[in-house]
Amino acid sequence: MTTDTISSALCTTIAEAHGAVFSARMANRTIGLVPTMGALHEGHLSLIRRAAAENGFVVVSVFVNPIQFDDAADFVAYPHTIEEDAALAIDAGADAVFAPSAKEMYPDGFSSYIDMGGITERLCGAARKAHFRGVCTVVGKLFHIVQPDRAYFGEKDAQQLAVVRKMVRDLNFPIRIVGCPTVREPDGLAMSSRNARLSQEERKAARCLFRALSEACRLFAEEGARGAAALTGAMRGVLAAEPLARAEYVEIVDPETFASRAPEAAVHAGDRAMLAVHVGGVRLIDNMELTETRETLADHD
Amino acid sequence: MTTDTISSALCTTIAEAHGAVFSARMANRTIGLVPTMGALHEGHLSLIRRAAAENGFVVVSVFVNPIQFDDAADFVAYPHTIEEDAALAIDAGADAVFAPSAKEMYPDGFSSYIDMGGITERLCGAARKAHFRGVCTVVGKLFHIVQPDRAYFGEKDAQQLAVVRKMVRDLNFPIRIVGCPTVREPDGLAMSSRNARLSQEERKAARCLFRALSEACRLFAEEGARGAAALTGAMRGVLAAEPLARAEYVEIVDPETFASRAPEAAVHAGDRAMLAVHVGGVRLIDNMELTETRETLADHD
Repeated sequence: MTTDTISSALCTTIAEAHGAVFSARMANRTIGLVPTMGALHEGHLSLIRRAAAENGFVVVSVFVNPIQFDDAADFVAYPHTIEEDAALAIDAGADAVFAPSAKEMYPDGFSSYIDMGGITERLCGAARKAHFRGVCTVVGKLFHIVQPDRAYFGEKDAQQLAVVRKMVRDLNFPIRIVGCPTVREPDGLAMSSRNARLSQEERKAARCLFRALSEACRLFAEEGARGAAALTGAMRGVLAAEPLARAEYVEIVDPETFASRAPEAAVHAGDRAMLAVHVGGVRLIDNMELTETRETLADHD
Repeated sequence: MTTDTISSALCTTIAEAHGAVFSARMANRTIGLVPTMGALHEGHLSLIRRAAAENGFVVVSVFVNPIQFDDAADFVAYPHTIEEDAALAIDAGADAVFAPSAKEMYPDGFSSYIDMGGITERLCGAARKAHFRGVCTVVGKLFHIVQPDRAYFGEKDAQQLAVVRKMVRDLNFPIRIVGCPTVREPDGLAMSSRNARLSQEERKAARCLFRALSEACRLFAEEGARGAAALTGAMRGVLAAEPLARAEYVEIVDPETFASRAPEAAVHAGDRAMLAVHVGGVRLIDNMELTETRETLADHD
């Protein structure tokens, strides 16, 4: 790919993004948006390919959103690789890559936010109070700037996907949200930009998330386990066996509200097993849907 | 106007509004939105006429928004007159009247809000904590449902106009906000749906808002008064002379941030004099811009 191809697709201001989208709209092309924080991996690329298959024009946004980080160190450590990201995105089918500056997205005096009660206060929102407010606000802004017909989000961030779906429903955004399956490494680790920050030893240890979730799915599908405590207990057991891992939350949740099933409560097919685990200094999340018949995980087993 | 004309323009569900707007958009007509809470008066009609002059298709929304009322009694007392409102709106140039139910706008489990710091905490937001959150949320929802090119708001609600402008700027709504001058009764009282709730005696007393604002404008333009304390003091004096009136706030504010000028601060041309006054049981607001030369108020003097 030439530098020219990249620079003609790259929009670094809101006005440039408006221009690119306006041309596409005038040509009667439907618009797909894939919001990312960059450091693109195979998970993102699967979203971009799907968006390219379903739309006439695909915008990939690359913006490390400062207001969704409660931890300044995590924000600073988050990888910034815009040139490589743009090349990967275009190669996967992006027509425009929108990489605005934080200064243009949040100018002096900025004070408007999209906020949500309930679902956002749980799991990833419990320890990080402003996280989902930051996610909703930046996603709302991107929706207004790009005005896509469809927007694509990964199921790896299942709670984020549910929050975005709810925001769109509650606030009547004229946009269809498309959730896409988690893409995994050969050993089962969910693809994440944060994986690059794991040492070799931590990378091995990180497989415990997949092992814990698989064990919950196996108990539910093959042994008929239906108690929340039994399932979370089994997952905690797998995680505890890994000395480098420290669990932040281990829950079975309602797939709509993400409310935790109480220890004594019954678990239903469709509920999700949810994990946040710190491996070394890196916070990883993953989740799986509990199903009556176990999905084939042959690639990873 | 026939009942048929009204019923063909009236949309009582979001799906009906989508249908009306879709047809207009397909016909390449620009869309103007005038959001109202009904009980239409000459002030609203001036917004609708302006919208009709500037757009190919005008939607007037009529929705008494429960979440912007802190006071349940005020919400219940707010007039509901949809049939008359629809006839008036159509007569003034509306192509569609969107009057959704509260149940469809805020279904069970609704929990997403657009919120803003700073400007919303002052004046009308100081005593009514959730007021502007309710305004921003419903206006954002209406913007997403109708997707107008332009939306029209009255300067009578100057703080609301500034809040909506800021929301649009901060969150990148692709909509142009048009502010329109306050329409007044012959004696100067600003048109408001709440005026209908004044007794005959209170109606007379309500003129004190206009008199107080006019006095501040006169002192600024003709006597060169530039101290905030002198101007607010003069307004308070006018209001105090009216036994039925009780001031909630009396301020000179920065026209962008709506921060109050401190008593000892200098006041500049372009600043706004802002009033909220309870007359009997009715809360009335009004405001005027301070200008170097006094505007002709001959109609009302």
